[in-house]
Amino acid sequence: MKWDTVAIVGVGLIGGSLGLALRQRRLARRVVGVGRRPSSLRRAREAGAVDATTTRLERGVGDADVVVVCTPVSRIADQVRKAAAHCRRDCLLTDAGSTKRLIVERLSDLGGDGPVFVGSHPLAGSEQSGVASARADLFQGRVCVMTPTPRTPRGAQDRVRALWEAVGAEVVVMTPQAHDRALAFTSHLPHLVAVALASTLPEGYEKLVATGMRDTTRIASGDPELWVDIFEQNREKLLEGLKAFDKELAQLRRALESQDNKVLHRLLAQAKQSRDRLG
Amino acid sequence: MKWDTVAIVGVGLIGGSLGLALRQRRLARRVVGVGRRPSSLRRAREAGAVDATTTRLERGVGDADVVVVCTPVSRIADQVRKAAAHCRRDCLLTDAGSTKRLIVERLSDLGGDGPVFVGSHPLAGSEQSGVASARADLFQGRVCVMTPTPRTPRGAQDRVRALWEAVGAEVVVMTPQAHDRALAFTSHLPHLVAVALASTLPEGYEKLVATGMRDTTRIASGDPELWVDIFEQNREKLLEGLKAFDKELAQLRRALESQDNKVLHRLLAQAKQSRDRLG
Repeated sequence: MKWDTVAIVGVGLIGGSLGLALRQRRLARRVVGVGRRPSSLRRAREAGAVDATTTRLERGVGDADVVVVCTPVSRIADQVRKAAAHCRRDCLLTDAGSTKRLIVERLSDLGGDGPVFVGSHPLAGSEQSGVASARADLFQGRVCVMTPTPRTPRGAQDRVRALWEAVGAEVVVMTPQAHDRALAFTSHLPHLVAVALASTLPEGYEKLVATGMRDTTRIASGDPELWVDIFEQNREKLLEGLKAFDKELAQLRRALESQDNKVLHRLLAQAKQSRDRLG
Repeated sequence: MKWDTVAIVGVGLIGGSLGLALRQRRLARRVVGVGRRPSSLRRAREAGAVDATTTRLERGVGDADVVVVCTPVSRIADQVRKAAAHCRRDCLLTDAGSTKRLIVERLSDLGGDGPVFVGSHPLAGSEQSGVASARADLFQGRVCVMTPTPRTPRGAQDRVRALWEAVGAEVVVMTPQAHDRALAFTSHLPHLVAVALASTLPEGYEKLVATGMRDTTRIASGDPELWVDIFEQNREKLLEGLKAFDKELAQLRRALESQDNKVLHRLLAQAKQSRDRLG
């Protein structure tokens, strides 16, 4: 056993998958699930994602070696702060939020004599949500970004790295700012574009949709609440990404309008090259 | 056997898959592949997609009951016309092109005493191309749009329907114009958007791309030549689709800029509803 007690605050897709991975790999003696709704907590227990549950955060984190906050990004900072007030001084606090800059800034006063917070973001997920979609192998082979600050003790970084590596992820270290700028392009902008595209489809055309459109819009099925939160926390970088996207789209539009197939071909070939790099 | 000889002009992903399906289901005594490059034709024979091959269209179609032209859309009308000049009078001509209006218009003088052309478009494909990616079940459970005109004889429609149904597709009848308008939204616009999105990704961020961005841009790996052709043949409807997309994206941008989370939530919820309808 690597840990005695791990507390997971928010046992949906991410928190539930972390619980499953910890329990199935026998990495923790006890996984405690903390949540607001007894019904979700019951489902998490039934799914085998947690050993025990509570709706009271202060009680759930009391014995924990590690607390991982897996709630929507707008709630993470408050919950980490509350956990810090009720956990042991040697407890390690981290999260799984899709944005990092604001969360890390808001928690920059933690540490010192008290428990340390290190931000993290496993790049795993799905358009589905809830513990029903959780999978023990969700983090296997995925990247997890860890965002320490210059003040983060080395030991705390090592412990967060060990947690995500233990469930199969590869840890990449970035500043919170660099993380948010990158994710604006690699995740938040694609989501915004998929949303716009899904909304553009006139009703009645469903039957004429093939795999291309289906894949291109899949993530638009994601939970609107989660994504409004993410967009809000990374608004400026997302708007920068959107500007860059607009520029690309404008080039394509001009080539189409002017019937310039040579330019159109060049733009499509560039995009293919860029996409092929993703494998 | 349903047919004696079927000639397939262009044995790439679509033509090759059709050949595989016809041969594996023993629907034709003989499948003849027609192509420009001996190397592609050899690969098609080796893949089991055709029984015989020729680079000379006029010879390949001479004995055919059915000719299916599966080449890039800019070449289809010419090749159907050439096939019509060299095939039997009772031969049925069809195609598998992603656009229909221009092709059907350009061939509107066919028929009468000579062979009849009926346009068709199986909504199956992939970002891959070439006979190496061909699959006998490519059309299974997919929709194939057939675009007869008021002058198309009933018998010819029935024969085209029988062909696509025999390889597993469900046939939907539309006018060429309605087809092109619908596909502008369900296929050509998503492709254009995926291309713009793939090009927006700054180099060096590949590692931070998760499944969302990967799926959203997958089709941008498609063959640029094929897609320039498709865009050219459906330019006006595609630009209409792009205008509708711009409107959706502008609403999202305004909500982001003005930090109006209520509107943002409504837009995301609408998109989710639209996407969830696709299943």
